Amino acid sequence: MLRTAVTLFNRKGYDATSIGDLAAELGVTKSAIYHHVASKEELLRLALDDALDELTQVVSAAVGDDGTSAHDRLREVVRRSVEVLVAHQPAVTLLLRVRGNTPVEVEALKRRRWLDDQLADLVRAAAAEGALRADIAPDLVSRLLFGMVNSLIEWYRPQGTHAPATLAEAVTTMAFDGLLRR
Amino acid sequence: MLRTAVTLFNRKGYDATSIGDLAAELGVTKSAIYHHVASKEELLRLALDDALDELTQVVSAAVGDDGTSAHDRLREVVRRSVEVLVAHQPAVTLLLRVRGNTPVEVEALKRRRWLDDQLADLVRAAAAEGALRADIAPDLVSRLLFGMVNSLIEWYRPQGTHAPATLAEAVTTMAFDGLLRR
Repeated sequence: MLRTAVTLFNRKGYDATSIGDLAAELGVTKSAIYHHVASKEELLRLALDDALDELTQVVSAAVGDDGTSAHDRLREVVRRSVEVLVAHQPAVTLLLRVRGNTPVEVEALKRRRWLDDQLADLVRAAAAEGALRADIAPDLVSRLLFGMVNSLIEWYRPQGTHAPATLAEAVTTMAFDGLLRR
Repeated sequence: MLRTAVTLFNRKGYDATSIGDLAAELGVTKSAIYHHVASKEELLRLALDDALDELTQVVSAAVGDDGTSAHDRLREVVRRSVEVLVAHQPAVTLLLRVRGNTPVEVEALKRRRWLDDQLADLVRAAAAEGALRADIAPDLVSRLLFGMVNSLIEWYRPQGTHAPATLAEAVTTMAFDGLLRR
């Protein structure tokens, strides 16, 4: 049910989707849905939490690990973010389109901002340890790096030709080592 | 009027915006709007053409220029795409969110696909001349490169601290040379 709800939210937009639409799509009655969840907003919260919990785990693991350099942890967090995004693409798509019209969305934006802040801190730490080139401001690096990762939701198709690990490797290689042959 | 229409389309969604909404936002009557444009769809077409014409010009210039290497032309097209995106951010945002629900949107998607195909060809040409690393498939390079460029619409703010030229330089440097200090 949650998977169908997320698909509908992404296709029609959350605001334009009703519990009636979801019931019709599932071929059940509205009361069958209300037997499981209290409201449309609860479905949204469950979906957003799915994406946020996964991403929070990735970021917390990287931030908490002080045995390796910030550069290694940043590279790992990019790689694992790609994997989460691919494995939870519908939920992450919903998360990236949240506008903040409801309390659930406001809360999700708050958690997303926490993630962004942690990632920006990690980029600054990698720059401070001298691993990153100095001619691009760390805040730009952070935006562009995760902009590239997040852009996957626009075109990645699970039935496509690139395995998640290949994709994760391509993103980190391009970002850190660059496209030019050396 | 077009600028206000684009802002409204981006904020509320094209489908959810009416000529009445636009009239209210502008503080004019609906008939004043119909004096200038025949329909809401015409406003959409004008806005999408604005973005598409600019991007087509950038891509055509790069494709037509056979005096320089594919790598140089690709780098230039990335740089100039960033500048177009920043200068026409609302129209490009609208373009990137087009779903294909109306003939105008279908036509815009067709033009967007032409651009994507030209860019993919240019990436393949740069790979074929040996300028790019061989361990990332050209179709992935093309998706990630323009995914990073397009992600600017999500966070770039004209009043921010980075000038368009700085941004364009940061994108090309990160993509081609990589983030690592050498």
